[in-house]
Amino acid sequence: MLAEISDLDRARALLAWDERTKMPPAGAEARAEQEATLARIGHQRLVSDELGRLLDQAAAQTDGLPYESEQASLVRVARREWEKARRVPAELRAEITRTSSLAEHAWVEAKDRSDFASFLPHLQRNVELKRRYAECFEGFGGFEHVYDPLLDDFEPGMSTAEVGAVLAQLRDGIRPLAAELAGHRGAVDDSCLHGSFPLDAQAQLAREVVSELPLEQDAWRLDPTVHPFATAIAPSDIRITTRFDESYVGAPLWAVIHEAGHGLYENGIAPELSRSPLAGPDSLGFHESQSRMWENWVGRGRPYLERLHPRLRESFPEQFGAVDPETLYRAANKVEASLIRVEADQVTYNLHIVMRFELELELFEGGLELADLPEAWNARTAEYLGLEVPDDARGVLQDVHWAAGVFGYFPTYSLGNLIAAQIWDASRVALPDLDGQIASGELVPLRDWLRDRLYRHGAKFTPKEMIERLVGGPIDVGPYLRQLRARAAEIYGI
Amino acid sequence: MLAEISDLDRARALLAWDERTKMPPAGAEARAEQEATLARIGHQRLVSDELGRLLDQAAAQTDGLPYESEQASLVRVARREWEKARRVPAELRAEITRTSSLAEHAWVEAKDRSDFASFLPHLQRNVELKRRYAECFEGFGGFEHVYDPLLDDFEPGMSTAEVGAVLAQLRDGIRPLAAELAGHRGAVDDSCLHGSFPLDAQAQLAREVVSELPLEQDAWRLDPTVHPFATAIAPSDIRITTRFDESYVGAPLWAVIHEAGHGLYENGIAPELSRSPLAGPDSLGFHESQSRMWENWVGRGRPYLERLHPRLRESFPEQFGAVDPETLYRAANKVEASLIRVEADQVTYNLHIVMRFELELELFEGGLELADLPEAWNARTAEYLGLEVPDDARGVLQDVHWAAGVFGYFPTYSLGNLIAAQIWDASRVALPDLDGQIASGELVPLRDWLRDRLYRHGAKFTPKEMIERLVGGPIDVGPYLRQLRARAAEIYGI
Repeated sequence: MLAEISDLDRARALLAWDERTKMPPAGAEARAEQEATLARIGHQRLVSDELGRLLDQAAAQTDGLPYESEQASLVRVARREWEKARRVPAELRAEITRTSSLAEHAWVEAKDRSDFASFLPHLQRNVELKRRYAECFEGFGGFEHVYDPLLDDFEPGMSTAEVGAVLAQLRDGIRPLAAELAGHRGAVDDSCLHGSFPLDAQAQLAREVVSELPLEQDAWRLDPTVHPFATAIAPSDIRITTRFDESYVGAPLWAVIHEAGHGLYENGIAPELSRSPLAGPDSLGFHESQSRMWENWVGRGRPYLERLHPRLRESFPEQFGAVDPETLYRAANKVEASLIRVEADQVTYNLHIVMRFELELELFEGGLELADLPEAWNARTAEYLGLEVPDDARGVLQDVHWAAGVFGYFPTYSLGNLIAAQIWDASRVALPDLDGQIASGELVPLRDWLRDRLYRHGAKFTPKEMIERLVGGPIDVGPYLRQLRARAAEIYGI
Repeated sequence: MLAEISDLDRARALLAWDERTKMPPAGAEARAEQEATLARIGHQRLVSDELGRLLDQAAAQTDGLPYESEQASLVRVARREWEKARRVPAELRAEITRTSSLAEHAWVEAKDRSDFASFLPHLQRNVELKRRYAECFEGFGGFEHVYDPLLDDFEPGMSTAEVGAVLAQLRDGIRPLAAELAGHRGAVDDSCLHGSFPLDAQAQLAREVVSELPLEQDAWRLDPTVHPFATAIAPSDIRITTRFDESYVGAPLWAVIHEAGHGLYENGIAPELSRSPLAGPDSLGFHESQSRMWENWVGRGRPYLERLHPRLRESFPEQFGAVDPETLYRAANKVEASLIRVEADQVTYNLHIVMRFELELELFEGGLELADLPEAWNARTAEYLGLEVPDDARGVLQDVHWAAGVFGYFPTYSLGNLIAAQIWDASRVALPDLDGQIASGELVPLRDWLRDRLYRHGAKFTPKEMIERLVGGPIDVGPYLRQLRARAAEIYGI
């Protein structure tokens, strides 16, 4: 039954991948039906009495097995998913899907016209439904806050209190750093990254960049799309996507490494976990930790960029002919507050996240009215980023998440940053010559270290268990702030 | 329920398409599981008591509706599928799948070594299981011959006696024509089609050729693969595939038209039949009629080739610089017996089919032992094609069908030729200026005529009903033999 559910999920992932990379546009309507059918059939199985009975039987058989054994983990993780899924009435689920689909369409138009008012009723319905969704979990193991069930869908076992405390520390660490760097505005020139980069050469370079990452051979492909993502049709079938921009070279340099980082995680999951709920990453935060670690700490690091530099010169002689590796390194790590989250640098990115998390919390706790959201957004942007929001399109309407009915998701991006830094620290202790290895293109030792400690375990452990296993402590802002500050010190001389 | 079954089938079609065009090789094992799961879930629904009840209810509601109404057709066609599917025990079905999968692997090796003996036990099991499969239909509506149920899976309602009579007439018409043309061996020079054709230019030309066929815009794509096929993920999502050969220009000229012909059929099915068992072609013979009509009677016809000729010169100046349209037309229609079915010309192709059909019949009737099959194959090849078979790889082992456990399929290829000719005749009466339209690239009138009479009806009618509706009579060898003879007369002067 669990294998069937997994197969249905993976098939649906392929349908979604195809929809976003290959499908002729006229196929969209039929595709939506196909995806809905697979989702419905999988969900019927997930919430079935029969699965409950099978899990009871399996629990009896795995009684006494070690906590981390495959069988015990499978029963534990699957039972929790089963219990959570059964708490939500089918009608509510259907209503959420329908409403958020309408809201997403309304959002596209509202964003185009920078018209929050037209989007507001949709947002109200989304929030109302998510509140009802959260209410389904009253009395469910350990949930205390209305936001707990929302968060738990992405970070199983993490509480609002815990995440709130960590993100407050992060905010309080980042804000002075960002302020300090704002005083050095203009000290870094990243003009080499902007200009004219022929798309063919970008695609060729992107392919080479991914080829040299330690993904298993014959187990991945790279395709262009509009909104980049990575997905795994199986641990041995990784689909990376990217979007090329003629005027900016970020796609082949870092965007593909980011998506390949997600892919490296999925690709490293132990084959024996295949076709089970364990065959995914630990949590969204952990998933994001790997995209960000590979992108930011490998891909924007000096050893990697020094190695890449001659290749870049070959691909784009006009742009990089007179650019030395140090200039490239500085450009890759420029910090400057900006309005749009997805264009933000590594430092100020977290302020975008903290702000969204805080606003979500205030909305669900009831301290903030949805009608007042744009005002609150703009005030928080001024306070945290020192920027004035010129219109809602570049403000509260910029992200799809709320339109899609997704709340509790944003924090995982910053959790990913924190976890990435903790893992990066640990890997550098374990692999003392990591810089040298990266400089010579040897990325397999790092991959193997990560695979052994993190990737292969899939979703066996909760995020809290996993970080404890990895670094012997909880999620902690220290390593990340230290790393950011060290890099800023190198580049900005602060 | 029927919509769900359809969605599962279409999703599986996408998984199969992806497997053969895009999938990283390492994804194969997981993909097989995913496809098997979707097939199993769909089949469980198809044979369910619940579907029977739903069909009973629907039958009561559609009672009195016209035979060809959508609702009445849906109930009629779905009930027949349901009844057929329930006749076959799940274990037998599983055994057939397992055995034929092993047999296919054995066949690949046996063909490589031209070693029929190693393949024989697998073939014996395949035939034995198909015999048991046929026995499941004892007493089922109208089946009289052991081969009837096998044929019926591809040509619903066609009997062995009917197909046998038609193919015997075809054989007796083709053999003298082939013999006569064998006397003109060497009269047609097709060397312009063989040589060196850069793959990029072929791919470009293939794309242009398909673009100019009247497939709906934004509803198709073309991809390279190893064994070409066409599939429909929805009527508005057509996937055409082809294989390019550097030394032969057949892919962009005719192979893509063949596959696009299949696609035109699926693309023309009425949208209101979507997500139902009616949303497919009438039968394999009818499906093949359209690939062959577009390929052979449009694509190898003089008006089409005259229009294509300048384009061909541009794409391949060295090969076609000195070739005039008439030479191209003659080359496109050269007739010469050959050992390999898939390389055969339009005339002798049918002898390959008749021979296989006769051998299948003798095997299932018991007049031929499997061990004697190679000898029988070689004797029939000598008799019908006048060729000596040098080894089993180029003889009895050349096709995958029997290895895959597929019997009753081969005749549909020739039925497709016959139906194509009948439809082509009718379309030329209905569209008196068809040649002129083709010469000026106006293919929409032909497509619309076909859509109105054939495509839009999907699988509403049996093949016998459909051909009667189209031409006012049964499947008939006359039009095909006349057309072949007319073209041969033009080219060979016979």
